[in-house]
Amino acid sequence: MTNKPIIVLVRPQLGENIGKAARAMLNFGLTEMRIVNPRDGWPNPSAGPAAAGADIVLDQAKVYSSTAEAVADCEHVYATTVRKRGVTKTVVGPDGAARLVHSEPGRHAVLFGREASGLATEDVELARHILTVPINPEFGSLNLAQAVILVAYEWSRIGSELNASELVQPTDEDEKLPPAPQEELEGLIAHFEKLLDPRGYFLPEARREATQRTLRSVLTRPGWNHLEVRTLRGILTTLGREKRPED
Amino acid sequence: MTNKPIIVLVRPQLGENIGKAARAMLNFGLTEMRIVNPRDGWPNPSAGPAAAGADIVLDQAKVYSSTAEAVADCEHVYATTVRKRGVTKTVVGPDGAARLVHSEPGRHAVLFGREASGLATEDVELARHILTVPINPEFGSLNLAQAVILVAYEWSRIGSELNASELVQPTDEDEKLPPAPQEELEGLIAHFEKLLDPRGYFLPEARREATQRTLRSVLTRPGWNHLEVRTLRGILTTLGREKRPED
Repeated sequence: MTNKPIIVLVRPQLGENIGKAARAMLNFGLTEMRIVNPRDGWPNPSAGPAAAGADIVLDQAKVYSSTAEAVADCEHVYATTVRKRGVTKTVVGPDGAARLVHSEPGRHAVLFGREASGLATEDVELARHILTVPINPEFGSLNLAQAVILVAYEWSRIGSELNASELVQPTDEDEKLPPAPQEELEGLIAHFEKLLDPRGYFLPEARREATQRTLRSVLTRPGWNHLEVRTLRGILTTLGREKRPED
Repeated sequence: MTNKPIIVLVRPQLGENIGKAARAMLNFGLTEMRIVNPRDGWPNPSAGPAAAGADIVLDQAKVYSSTAEAVADCEHVYATTVRKRGVTKTVVGPDGAARLVHSEPGRHAVLFGREASGLATEDVELARHILTVPINPEFGSLNLAQAVILVAYEWSRIGSELNASELVQPTDEDEKLPPAPQEELEGLIAHFEKLLDPRGYFLPEARREATQRTLRSVLTRPGWNHLEVRTLRGILTTLGREKRPED
């Protein structure tokens, strides 16, 4: 069980909830927390008491000023949402996400939104997977630390299950490369946009954002690896050139 | 999923924790709570606010003066403990307990001890099963509501799993479109080649086939659906155009 998910708290409001999330994580052996724009700054004096001894998680937590920066080095990004937003993405439960973390090489980051409002649309768009906890449709009131603990618990449970059942590892998948880190994917998307924009692809202006979202979603889903992204960058560079004069 | 476990809080200290346990339960559809000798009496004014709307659970909660009375009508009793006490009893995790609840007829009661000290030995002795959450041996700090939510979550998850396997068809994936038919994919690949070839992408000639194979592999792996292929065709048409004169 060496592949551990990184827990990313996006714009959390209360230090107490950051501390509780750390406690939830450490209960199941997760230690890497990233925090995007905490409302009350960082460090936050309310976090420590609520962590109930999980100080190691808080002490090592890193703070970022945007979600994109927080997941730039991560090959797999999950957006935790209550509803199944973003129908073009795969939807997994905490158990399905845990299986992916244990089976897919690369860094896995799970995004959790702020207490009151959850993740913003642009945070969800960064992710390749939607992580949804299947709660009571008539009473969905999962707080931040509870959502975190379910993800951490499943990571631990599935890990033990896999350890018990598959002590002999399949080795033929060794060569499979993980998806490229998020920042390479962002570079690819930006390259597409740079070529498409002057050719009028995003017009009319009123549709620009929706068109950008569609583009991002089509390019995010494949989970291309580093080499594939490099190939696509080469293709785009070629397409940006004029045709060769002799043709 | 008609067989629901009864959550029994034994000598809980804080009303707030009773409320949080109610909230955790209702998130996954559990509604029956029993309380044994709550320290501060019942009803407790701190419980309601912490329940965050799960008042139905608190309103219907029944109070007992001993654990034995609280589980007198229950066929199956589980004692939640951190350590695997009582070696003569079967030990199950939240998932194992959930499978038993769903498969064994009769009322199932899960005992949770008081916040600071857990269940007393005589409470554990009432139970036929020990329910243990497998937490980090170096940091076990699960609070009452967190233990309750893991039990409730597993009850819900295993119930859905059993429902899905019995009902033959998972229907919630209906909205996800299948990959586009092969001929659409071939059309996309041909479109890429038509744009790339006159721009010298496949040169030198000796590398042409290998380069074509790489391109095909990058475009085949995503499994894009019909709509996504259409989007990509539009992108390629745009990229084949010259930049707009006004730019």
